[in-house]
Amino acid sequence: MTDSPPPAPARTPAVAAVGSGSTALLTDRYELTMLQAALADGTAHRRCVFEVFTRRLPAGRRYGVLAGTGRVLEQLAAFRFGTPELDWLADERVVDDATLAFLADYRFDADVVGYAEGEVFFPQSPVLVVEGTFAQAVLIETLVLSVLNYDSAVASAASRMTSAAVGRPCLEMGARRAHEDSAVAAARAAVIAGFAATSNLEAGRRYGLGTIGTAAHAFTLLHDDERAAFASQVASQGPGTTLLVDTYDVRRGVENALAAAGTGLGAVRLDSGDLGVLAQEVRQQLDDAGARDTRIVVTSDLDEYAIASLAVAPVDSYGVGTSLVTGSGAPTCGMVYKLVAREGASGEMEPVAKASRAKTSVGGRKSAARRLDRDGRAVEEVLVVGPDDQVAAWTRRQAADPDPLLRPLHVPLVVDGEVLPGLTAAAGVRAAAARHAASRDELPRGARRLSADEAAVPTVELSLG
Amino acid sequence: MTDSPPPAPARTPAVAAVGSGSTALLTDRYELTMLQAALADGTAHRRCVFEVFTRRLPAGRRYGVLAGTGRVLEQLAAFRFGTPELDWLADERVVDDATLAFLADYRFDADVVGYAEGEVFFPQSPVLVVEGTFAQAVLIETLVLSVLNYDSAVASAASRMTSAAVGRPCLEMGARRAHEDSAVAAARAAVIAGFAATSNLEAGRRYGLGTIGTAAHAFTLLHDDERAAFASQVASQGPGTTLLVDTYDVRRGVENALAAAGTGLGAVRLDSGDLGVLAQEVRQQLDDAGARDTRIVVTSDLDEYAIASLAVAPVDSYGVGTSLVTGSGAPTCGMVYKLVAREGASGEMEPVAKASRAKTSVGGRKSAARRLDRDGRAVEEVLVVGPDDQVAAWTRRQAADPDPLLRPLHVPLVVDGEVLPGLTAAAGVRAAAARHAASRDELPRGARRLSADEAAVPTVELSLG
Repeated sequence: MTDSPPPAPARTPAVAAVGSGSTALLTDRYELTMLQAALADGTAHRRCVFEVFTRRLPAGRRYGVLAGTGRVLEQLAAFRFGTPELDWLADERVVDDATLAFLADYRFDADVVGYAEGEVFFPQSPVLVVEGTFAQAVLIETLVLSVLNYDSAVASAASRMTSAAVGRPCLEMGARRAHEDSAVAAARAAVIAGFAATSNLEAGRRYGLGTIGTAAHAFTLLHDDERAAFASQVASQGPGTTLLVDTYDVRRGVENALAAAGTGLGAVRLDSGDLGVLAQEVRQQLDDAGARDTRIVVTSDLDEYAIASLAVAPVDSYGVGTSLVTGSGAPTCGMVYKLVAREGASGEMEPVAKASRAKTSVGGRKSAARRLDRDGRAVEEVLVVGPDDQVAAWTRRQAADPDPLLRPLHVPLVVDGEVLPGLTAAAGVRAAAARHAASRDELPRGARRLSADEAAVPTVELSLG
Repeated sequence: MTDSPPPAPARTPAVAAVGSGSTALLTDRYELTMLQAALADGTAHRRCVFEVFTRRLPAGRRYGVLAGTGRVLEQLAAFRFGTPELDWLADERVVDDATLAFLADYRFDADVVGYAEGEVFFPQSPVLVVEGTFAQAVLIETLVLSVLNYDSAVASAASRMTSAAVGRPCLEMGARRAHEDSAVAAARAAVIAGFAATSNLEAGRRYGLGTIGTAAHAFTLLHDDERAAFASQVASQGPGTTLLVDTYDVRRGVENALAAAGTGLGAVRLDSGDLGVLAQEVRQQLDDAGARDTRIVVTSDLDEYAIASLAVAPVDSYGVGTSLVTGSGAPTCGMVYKLVAREGASGEMEPVAKASRAKTSVGGRKSAARRLDRDGRAVEEVLVVGPDDQVAAWTRRQAADPDPLLRPLHVPLVVDGEVLPGLTAAAGVRAAAARHAASRDELPRGARRLSADEAAVPTVELSLG
């Protein structure tokens, strides 16, 4: 025990980047080959409207939660074709010289509106609308969908968990069960959907999230016995720490924990076994010892159903990992990015849609609103469809003279390539979490039940003109 | 159609990095708080052995595929605490000054052995073994598991798909259904498990993978009609391109495709409808028109079962998206990183294991081998357990005098912090793909059936001493 840490050296400088930092190649090859052909025939400069929506919710789910918008906006700024990207595209002959020249100059300068991040959505909800030239808008398809599909899958699952927890804090601990960068996005999405904190340090740094975590079984096993491990942890982190008491025997573990920290012990964590039964026993043991303020944290393959089943157990918070970062059975959202209108040969905007039966889309640009009843409860998801000018006029009328029973859902996100303020980084996460809480509260009460059912409100069309 | 691309500017320089490039904070907070306590009590410098393994395969799966090892090794090089990381940890008071000083100097210098990337694995297979001080080895837990759990989930699913495709090429197209960086890892894992190419440009660049892709429905919809779209694509990419024929009507689409490209058309793609029936009809139509060499690519929510069901259809290749990047029902592997042995107070190495029933682990350092029958077929996964010196002696004996019916599975990966050559980047992917093909061929024939069953071979222990 005489080992001591090495003397403090001067801090090292920031290390070199792993990648080049450009997000431009996080893209399917066909976006670039389509661009090449469209540049050659002139259609690349046609005005286009692309919409992001999902055709259905995962089986049994009653609503989805939009997350990732802020990350999309952050990534657009890095969507640049620098020399390394252009050289690689040239070497691989992915596109021709004219296209390389276009890409070298590419800056996203289209307009984007969409649902506020954190908003709930339903089948066909146009959660993001990108309007610009084909060349502008097509290139970002893959990146937009990657971000929204993953982040929204996690947020949609997370919202069910925080619902089931009925106010008890949920803690995100899933980093090890997801790709290392997905894990950062998952922590962000979880907090948007009401999680209290994350174990993920990078997510804490990047998005200003609270971080938590004290010790794993390895720390106990590292020491000669559990008492030595607990004593060391309390000496390092104070009695307010959380001690993991199930490495050997839980009852003995709680005894050792109280011996190390006293009745001021912050919390004990249970990570295995029948958590409901164990929590009852441990609560009794803690209370009997006078440690009435010591909390009980449970972890161990929890999902929304396990959380709900622990509602009557004396549990103070839930740590959730695997099921959160994998979307609790629905690891992607099935969002698509579809061309719904484009400038025709005449210069007029025209609605377009694929005709094959299985993948029908509603053509034309849409607006969207949520219809509320007089108690402020959501009753319908309203897609406003019609000629472009009439949809635009409808939107203006709503802004000038709001109908209190029809809440517009589209907010501006990017204007002429400029991302509006407050939507990214920590501020974006805070705003999205507030939006989610308000939107979820507005849903019919039954929407928060976990049992399988239809979408909580129907999606209807309001046709103009 | 008079629009022309802007003149070619000088290529822009590489853009600024999105993050700082350090992987060190892709880590659960408790790794650092454990380190702090262990530095204070001296146990941080105890020698430790951590093993990565999975307790079970996903329900019904017969084997798993290890992928991600090369990515782990790449990321270890960037696992450095630079000034931005240290400043943030200090500001957030995650750890104390002594720990910050240790982290500033941290370089991974432990030893790592493991299964070759691409190798198949079974429950309890020790796919990665990290040996070093507690401080060295504990810090990388989260990152190691994030990478291996995701990449192996994808490779395990991908291997079933390439098996079901029985030699027809499988193409990875899932980028939009996964987090944008996961997508790059997924493409890499898919190629390790036998996929022929990917739509993902960043994966192509980073790992030297072949990339594919021509056009989406949006390209057809952008144009005034399908014939104009196909003519443009053929003009841009030549008649060898793949034309997407199901935007409006498939029969008409094939007619338009042949009109645009002639009978030298490379391929048509079907992305909706009853693919088996459509493929028959399209094949007949192509053959009748004399386009006998025009191939048929199918895409549209394929998984291993859909691929198998198309075995008798005249399909030439399969594009797979969602089910691949989400592990086809098993989006994470459940791999854990467990302390199995550590130096005790006496200075001797001692096996350790958590005692709680639900999460039992086998203590002590292990080696591993695959027992083969005389035909070279795998019959058992052998875990070699016993006192450290005897396991080491067994490993040396196998190297000196190999038993042809017992193939050792551990290969050295990192020696004193130095990553051995050939394991990362494109070379690593090529080697892993070759390893996977050989290991899968060695499995009992029934292992490649898709029907739910037990692990293809049992995991047994060989106890020494």
